Amino acid sequence: VRFVADPVALFKDVTLIICAVPTQYIRAALERLKPHVPPAVPIVSIAKGIEISTLKRPSQIITELLGSRFIAALSGPSIAGELARGLPATMVVATEGGNGEFAKWMQELFTTSFLRIYRNDDLLGVEFAGALKNVIAVAAGILDGMRAGNNVKAALLARGLVEITRLGVAMGAKPETFAGLAGLGDLVTTCFSPEGRNRSFGQRVGQGEKPQVVLASMVGVVEGVPTCESVVRLARALRIEMPIAESLHGVLFEGLNPRSQLADLMARESKAEMQERNAGG
Amino acid sequence: VRFVADPVALFKDVTLIICAVPTQYIRAALERLKPHVPPAVPIVSIAKGIEISTLKRPSQIITELLGSRFIAALSGPSIAGELARGLPATMVVATEGGNGEFAKWMQELFTTSFLRIYRNDDLLGVEFAGALKNVIAVAAGILDGMRAGNNVKAALLARGLVEITRLGVAMGAKPETFAGLAGLGDLVTTCFSPEGRNRSFGQRVGQGEKPQVVLASMVGVVEGVPTCESVVRLARALRIEMPIAESLHGVLFEGLNPRSQLADLMARESKAEMQERNAGG
Repeated sequence: VRFVADPVALFKDVTLIICAVPTQYIRAALERLKPHVPPAVPIVSIAKGIEISTLKRPSQIITELLGSRFIAALSGPSIAGELARGLPATMVVATEGGNGEFAKWMQELFTTSFLRIYRNDDLLGVEFAGALKNVIAVAAGILDGMRAGNNVKAALLARGLVEITRLGVAMGAKPETFAGLAGLGDLVTTCFSPEGRNRSFGQRVGQGEKPQVVLASMVGVVEGVPTCESVVRLARALRIEMPIAESLHGVLFEGLNPRSQLADLMARESKAEMQERNAGG
Repeated sequence: VRFVADPVALFKDVTLIICAVPTQYIRAALERLKPHVPPAVPIVSIAKGIEISTLKRPSQIITELLGSRFIAALSGPSIAGELARGLPATMVVATEGGNGEFAKWMQELFTTSFLRIYRNDDLLGVEFAGALKNVIAVAAGILDGMRAGNNVKAALLARGLVEITRLGVAMGAKPETFAGLAGLGDLVTTCFSPEGRNRSFGQRVGQGEKPQVVLASMVGVVEGVPTCESVVRLARALRIEMPIAESLHGVLFEGLNPRSQLADLMARESKAEMQERNAGG
């Protein structure tokens, strides 16, 4: 990896562009770089979020600003520190359906002896899954901070996956994508790895710190926070039941107490498991 | 809880029986107790396994020995130590479809201020999910013992859930059951909680100890080990692809090395994520 300050030199002779800008900054970054980005060069996005102002996915922002071209999203359980140490991992490369040859090229390009790449033609679903799991990860971190235990954290993951799948499917995603590496797989690492930013942020909130104070003290972006805002706006507009995201919204943006929010979630009317899962979706 | 050595005193005036005997010992225990068990009293089973000799589920063994009566299975993410400390948790009470009033009674009976109970009418699915997740938990423990990292462990959970769902559905389970608390939820706690027996057993195997030596040194039952044997027999008979269970079988019963088994899993031909998921199921 070379760092280059000059945008002309940056894009000289490139055959593939990897866009690693956090979601809320992609628009500004690309507006600046746009005059220098060569046409037709494929772009791989690794951002996991939804733009607050427009509710767009990273690949949509890229296409809007740079024009139609091959775009892939690389996602899945991939803590950077583990990859850097050559520990085994799996990821998903997602493209729009019908771009099979491009997908196979991406798959070969990123495959190594320790990294197994799966293809997925549900680009929308992979991007939504990657964004939405950060919301659940913040909530999981809050449970960690409250020392609430692994029983309820496992329930949060299972029920959280149900509600983010519900939203994703309403937006056009395939449910299998959420059950796969980019959904469940990434959710698991993000909720259990100590180094995850979203989980760590949540943990401090669960220990009693104010969300805005924690955010101000952290370097870089906690994608789950703006994504929670986007998600709750989407869910309310589409009338989709997302009790965990709503509870988290209360903690992050409405000054509500994590303990009372958890108690409210636990006290919801007892239901059949399937009934509740299917409600609203 | 009172401990009683006299079977007549044990069953005097009971209105509900909770059967907490490990799966492989239910038959022997009930054969001994059978003359004393009152007819028509409902039974709740909390065992998570499949009987090796018959491939039967706990509720099937109970019905075979004690005759037809209301039977429920109580399952889900429920580490005992956390429940004992009053930490919040969720569980599923499963009954055969059509036993709605019995299910509601069970739900009310087990609900407390810190334990939320969901009803599920897929008794077969809940019992299979509870048994099969122990197989994945042993494999997760092996990865822990090898210090393979959370990226690959998350992939194991996601791919493992896919393959145990495939077998469960072939046996007549609802796929939603595996995506719910008794499937995914229980899988998550079992794979991540340090105190889990199946995970701890796997961890020692991953550190290089021989499976039979570890088993001999442990007090009590590691349900995932006999279940792995049952599962692989079932999968082979039904021609269902279960690469993780097969790999684990190699380590537990065929003397194969965990590192080479993991390398083989990682080197399997690259595929599209959905293609592979749908194969055989």
